[in-house]
Amino acid sequence: MELERPYLLFLGDVPDALAAKTGLGIVDWRRDWCVGQWRLPNCKADAKLPEMNATDAAAAGAKTMIVGVVNAGGVLPDHWIASIVEALEAGLDVASGLHKPLASVPAIAEAAAKTGQRLLDVRISKQSFATGKGNKRSGKRLLTVGTDCSVGKKYTALALEAGMNAKGFDATFCATGQTGVFISGRGVAIDAVVADFISGAAEWLTPATEPNAWQIVEGQGSLFHPSFAGVSLGLLHGAQPDAFVVCHEPTRTKMRGVETPLPTIGEVIEATIAMGKLTNPAIRPVGIAVNTAALDEGEARAMLYSVATEYNLPTIDPVRFGVDPIVDALAAEYLA
Amino acid sequence: MELERPYLLFLGDVPDALAAKTGLGIVDWRRDWCVGQWRLPNCKADAKLPEMNATDAAAAGAKTMIVGVVNAGGVLPDHWIASIVEALEAGLDVASGLHKPLASVPAIAEAAAKTGQRLLDVRISKQSFATGKGNKRSGKRLLTVGTDCSVGKKYTALALEAGMNAKGFDATFCATGQTGVFISGRGVAIDAVVADFISGAAEWLTPATEPNAWQIVEGQGSLFHPSFAGVSLGLLHGAQPDAFVVCHEPTRTKMRGVETPLPTIGEVIEATIAMGKLTNPAIRPVGIAVNTAALDEGEARAMLYSVATEYNLPTIDPVRFGVDPIVDALAAEYLA
Repeated sequence: MELERPYLLFLGDVPDALAAKTGLGIVDWRRDWCVGQWRLPNCKADAKLPEMNATDAAAAGAKTMIVGVVNAGGVLPDHWIASIVEALEAGLDVASGLHKPLASVPAIAEAAAKTGQRLLDVRISKQSFATGKGNKRSGKRLLTVGTDCSVGKKYTALALEAGMNAKGFDATFCATGQTGVFISGRGVAIDAVVADFISGAAEWLTPATEPNAWQIVEGQGSLFHPSFAGVSLGLLHGAQPDAFVVCHEPTRTKMRGVETPLPTIGEVIEATIAMGKLTNPAIRPVGIAVNTAALDEGEARAMLYSVATEYNLPTIDPVRFGVDPIVDALAAEYLA
Repeated sequence: MELERPYLLFLGDVPDALAAKTGLGIVDWRRDWCVGQWRLPNCKADAKLPEMNATDAAAAGAKTMIVGVVNAGGVLPDHWIASIVEALEAGLDVASGLHKPLASVPAIAEAAAKTGQRLLDVRISKQSFATGKGNKRSGKRLLTVGTDCSVGKKYTALALEAGMNAKGFDATFCATGQTGVFISGRGVAIDAVVADFISGAAEWLTPATEPNAWQIVEGQGSLFHPSFAGVSLGLLHGAQPDAFVVCHEPTRTKMRGVETPLPTIGEVIEATIAMGKLTNPAIRPVGIAVNTAALDEGEARAMLYSVATEYNLPTIDPVRFGVDPIVDALAAEYLA
């Protein structure tokens, strides 16, 4: 899926900032791609962008309106439909991360047909992929993996992309989830792909590239999560990473949504190498990212030091302290 | 997906027996469920069932007509449509393993709507599943796993089901592919499920049961196949097997369809335990099934002896020599 830029962010009338998390994430990472925000009366989220409607945004050059919000159950409220139709009529594509397909609303489907603009449901994969082949491709790849779901794999990948490019690497974030697709303008919601094509979709996402270019691949789930490990393994095989970074949330005791205990960072390293070597025998860990939000600064620094020492790997909290230790180690090796 | 029985097998006018493999497999394993076969002029496959059309089959008690054939590309030839419509009008459901959905043919969709009979596309999963939870369920489970795709996992599971029931076990085959679904009358084509729900679909397929009952789960792919390992891992986690049997084809040097070398049986045992213990810490191998079709009888017996000795596990060729060594070992432990 490829989105045309720049974007108009539609925030609707969501009740709080959390409901606009996707839209706010786009602004955090891709401020330059956003010409404005369109908010309905009583909207409680604010991405701090110029306020404009679809017609103004089209005049300002916008190509795609992003419905960057969640609603209970992923539904599309009836009173947002007119705004979406208006965007199509103003000449914008409309991209949504809601569960409900945009085209399932007759008024939206009609407006899209009439205007020829595209409806892009990033949660719903209509693209067909080949099955994965496992052949080695040129270029370098780094995958973020996790001890669990929702431990910062996307954030870490985006922060590494930015940090590596700042140090002189040619690095490109590769999105595997809906927010990531909006942020990169391209990608695939890999958990929405038919099971037979997980690794094939990951291969499509990370094609052969320049030998020194890095694709920084957003991980999904965990090899140790009983709901999603199949997705994680297909992504690992398809991405054939040269390098991986383990993401971890140290206060969690059970995996998200289930009763399964969390694996250790060491178990994740061991399993990722054991399974990942199938498509890249040279796979190795190059760092650890720990979410220390629940700790005070002293505890956080002590935790990073302790983890770094235990595993002999650069260990970061990308939100709190940045990504330099990992990027510097990569630069010493690859930019020498 | 649940199919009503008994079946009428529709063999169309396929050019050879291989094109009717699915239908012939149903007769091999479930002769009692088949009231007859319907062949069009020039059909070159023969399941050795009474010849009858849909009206005769309905009179004989048939409930479902199985389109148990493949055609180049999984398409539905135009000249089969009238037979399918006739079956619906005779009061039969129609189940198909073709890629093309039955309801995508207007005449078939109309006939189904008019008659109220069901169209069952076993390759296409419309059912929605919960995500896998990983909670321990009562009952015993055995999963067939493989060093590769197409090494006899379905055959081994069906042969174990038959052999175990003959020795006094309460064993039930659980189908994860299209032919298996026809043979068991229930199941899910697990490679057609959306990636997020692989382990959830496997949990649905193998629900809690009597503590001494065994579910014999048809494996898919291989943890070492770069195209399909995600499916294999999700199935392993969802099925939470107590026991597994490794299926192997000793003359293969590369994995099916790709350039990846075959893993050893030992590597498969090690990875299956390492990953499977997440949802069943007691997981263990209980046997090995080797396809010795390419060897003469002396070589075959020598191969089984050598593998059995190397891994200290009962080793069988279920097609050539039956499943007794594995079933006897299980009986000694569980039926004592």
